[in-house]
Formats: sequence, C-alpha cells, structure tokens
Amino acid sequence: MNAQPMPRLGRVYLVGAGPGDPDLLTVKALRLLQTVDVVVHDRLVGPGVLALIPPGVERVFAGKQRAHHHLRQPVLNDLLVERARAGQTVVRLKGGDPFVFGRGGEELEALLHAGVPFEIVPGITAALGAAAYVGVPLTHRDHSHALVLATGYGQDGPALHDWNALARAGQTLCLYMGLSGLARMRQELIAAGMAPTTPACAVENATLPQQRVVKATLRELPERASRLDPTSPVLVIIGDVVALQDRYAWFTTAGASTASPFAGAAPKAPAAVNKRTA
Amino acid sequence: MNAQPMPRLGRVYLVGAGPGDPDLLTVKALRLLQTVDVVVHDRLVGPGVLALIPPGVERVFAGKQRAHHHLRQPVLNDLLVERARAGQTVVRLKGGDPFVFGRGGEELEALLHAGVPFEIVPGITAALGAAAYVGVPLTHRDHSHALVLATGYGQDGPALHDWNALARAGQTLCLYMGLSGLARMRQELIAAGMAPTTPACAVENATLPQQRVVKATLRELPERASRLDPTSPVLVIIGDVVALQDRYAWFTTAGASTASPFAGAAPKAPAAVNKRTA
Repeated sequence: MNAQPMPRLGRVYLVGAGPGDPDLLTVKALRLLQTVDVVVHDRLVGPGVLALIPPGVERVFAGKQRAHHHLRQPVLNDLLVERARAGQTVVRLKGGDPFVFGRGGEELEALLHAGVPFEIVPGITAALGAAAYVGVPLTHRDHSHALVLATGYGQDGPALHDWNALARAGQTLCLYMGLSGLARMRQELIAAGMAPTTPACAVENATLPQQRVVKATLRELPERASRLDPTSPVLVIIGDVVALQDRYAWFTTAGASTASPFAGAAPKAPAAVNKRTA
Repeated sequence: MNAQPMPRLGRVYLVGAGPGDPDLLTVKALRLLQTVDVVVHDRLVGPGVLALIPPGVERVFAGKQRAHHHLRQPVLNDLLVERARAGQTVVRLKGGDPFVFGRGGEELEALLHAGVPFEIVPGITAALGAAAYVGVPLTHRDHSHALVLATGYGQDGPALHDWNALARAGQTLCLYMGLSGLARMRQELIAAGMAPTTPACAVENATLPQQRVVKATLRELPERASRLDPTSPVLVIIGDVVALQDRYAWFTTAGASTASPFAGAAPKAPAAVNKRTA
C-alpha cells in the first residue's frame, strides 16, 4: 500500500487575548501565539497583541463586526477543522475572554462534531481590565457585594435584560459594548429603580495608551459619552464604586477627564500621586 | 551637610495572580515577580505561582484566612509603605483579580495616604479560570445574557444579597467561596424563584492538576459538594449553561465526576474527545 499516512490531528486553542494591553496576555496565550502554526483572530484583538505573533506563524483575519462578518461563521468553522485535520495547531484568538460574551461555546460546536481536540485559555475580560486601569474597585465591602456583567446586544438587536435585577443597589454593573444603546439602557435602569445620580463611567480603548474615560451620573452619561468615538468598543461601569475612581486612577492618559462629577459622593482622601508610567 | 540622601521612592504593584495555574499569570505579572525587590503574597496564591519568584526576590507571607490573619492589615499596610519609602519595588500579590473580591481598593488607601505610587495589574478571576478549565461557557446567546459574580461572605458573616436579583433566569451566577454557606444560599435562591433543577457545579482547585468538579442540580449541590475538601476555596457556578459542561470539558482530571446529573437537560452532541494534556 502506498497510501499516504493520515497527518496527525492538530489541535485548536480557543484563547482570550485580554482587553488590549499586550502585557495583559496570559503567559500561556503568549507562548501559544509564538509556537502554533496559525492564528485566527477577531477584529477586537488589537495591533499590540498581533505584533507579538512571529513572522513564521500564519495569521487569518476572521474579525466579526456587527452586520459585517468578514468570515461567515460556517466558513470560519470549516477553516478551523480543516487546519486541525491537516495536522496544524491553531489559535482561535478572541478579544477579552472567550466565555464572556465571546461566543466561545458556540465556536466549539464545530470542533466537537469533527472530533478536533481543543483547549480553552481564559483571558482578562474587558470589565476587569478597564476597572484596573481606570481605578474602579469592582467590589468593595462598603459599596458593592456583587458584580454583574451584561451585554448591550442580544441575538437580534438590543439585549432583553431583566432590568429589575440589573438595577439593584449594592452591586456594580458593567455593560459591554453599551454605548449605542446606552440612552435606552439608562431609561430602563432608572425605570427599574436605579438612582439617576448613580456614578457611572464609559471607557474607550481600555488598558491602551489611547484609553479615554468619561465620568458622569447615570442620568448624564449617554450625552457625556457621546464625545467618545463610537467605532471602538466601549465598556460602561455603573455603581457607587465609580465614585472612588479619582482616588485609584494611576494610568493617567491624555484623553481622560480630570474633573469629577461626583463632588461629595466619594469619601475624602488625598489625590493619587500616580501617573502613568511610560 | 552630611545628611544621607533620601532614597528614591519605590512603587507598589497591586497584582492579580489568577486562579492557580501559573500559565494564567499575565505577562506583566510574571515580569514583575521576577524583577521587583519583594513580593507580599496571600494564602490564595498557589505554590506554582510562588515557584516563579527567583531566589533574589524577597517573599513575605501576608496570607489572610478568615478569622486568622497572619499579618494584620495595619501591619501589612505599614510594611508596604515602609518598603516603598526605602526605595524598594513591591508586588502585593493577590489570588484572582485584586478588584474582584480582593479588597484591592481598601489596600490602596494606606498607599494613597502615604503618597506611595502604585499600579494595578488585573488577573484572571476565579470564575473565568474555572469556567474555561471546567468547560462552562458563562454566557451563551441561547441560555445566558448576563454573568453575576457574588461572594458567600459579607463583612461580618454570610453575605446579605438581594436574592431576587441573583435568582433571575437568563443569567449565570458564580459564587466565590460559597461552599460553607451553600445550603443557606440554595434556600434563598429557591425561595426567590430559582428552579431547584437549575444545573450547578462546585469547583475546587480550579485550573490546577488537582481540580475537582461536582455537578448537581441546585437542590442537590450542597450535599453532593460536601465531598470536596472544605479547606480549599470553592467556586460555585449556577445556571443553564452548566448543562453544557459535558461537551466542553477538555481539562479532565482524576477527581472530576464523569456522570452527568443533567440527563436530557443539555442538547445532544458527541462527547468531547479532549483529554487533559500533561
């Protein structure tokens, strides 16, 4: 028999790229990016992360935008399966964490059906990255006992949330991609009982040098945030803990607002002396 | 004048160590651990992470256990300030993420008052690490539109949560350190309207080789989970997405349970062919 031997089955790594700063990749993610055969990446993965992929590793852009899929999902699924069947190791790289609004579970279905081995590598999700770099402690024993992560988009448009659950006091609410629907969300939250004076902020390009932060009360945030470039993903944080942000802001960027709209809301303390380090 | 020059002021890095697997440290965290002067770490930071600290970097154990503080908080605060004033660079290393049930905000107060510069480095929080290694997609467009992280402990005992908000359908609930209070939490959640048949799991030593998972319905989880060693931190995940876990489990460990208690609850699919890689 002269039949060629079947190549050894490859493996697909579903990897979270974190919020943007390449320094926030996990050690495992970085090692995989530098040693696999091909990286299939999203639009949400920033250039700083992509720059870490060496020239010998193939890159495929499968970036999804709403209403504009560069690679349709079935084509992407076939690509991952074909490469693994050809014996290649593949990183499927997604912004943030693959299991938090990353549709990681759905992408694994094709691999399961094809019998392709996979591993899942978590990443720093946008809320945690933004909170650390903006200076918002997401939980605090005096202010917040729970953290809620929710998305602004559902399967076919604006998310259908249980606003009564999201509007509760004593918890911090992080909305992913929430800018375009923010005015409506504000109305839903206020109608569900959240105080219009609740401190809130919108963060664009979190963890990157071009990070920008707009702070306001919940009532005023949508209009204030309209100064942000709406083409970039925006994270919105709502809750009493946002009033602490002035104290813990260490990553000061040019675009950050400096005046606090929460005068009197936060406990008095010396201003942070920290500046962003180059 | 022969006065000694003041040493250059050091800096404190408040760093998340992630859920346990040293491979899940961020690149920045790893670099800091290997280059600072001293690492002050918690009990929740595992030996695999500590092993990455080179011999030339001093280690201080400040591990807190409930009701048994090795270093009382004021002493710890003074230590961080003194080291920075002596010109040292310090990593304050906390399990998971410093701003998610890590009390990071509170630890920064002493640094603020002393004028010590600091930076905050986020980490993979336990829920994301456990979900990725256990195989639970925390959000899923068919099952879960929001993710809630809550703790089992409040400032002075069991957490006082708004159970009506936590018990809502269509979201995934992750309880940190929830095992000892789990039976009471089950009652609160069921009383608030959560279905007793809601799929749930408890994860011990998430992301480590000794990871163990117990799956059950919400009603049966506390008794089933009692087989876990209660001295280790346990993460509890409750929600319909837990029923998907059989499909996405790739990190198979010796202690993991294999039979699903959710027969018929999850959509049918081929079993994952993945095994944990050494």
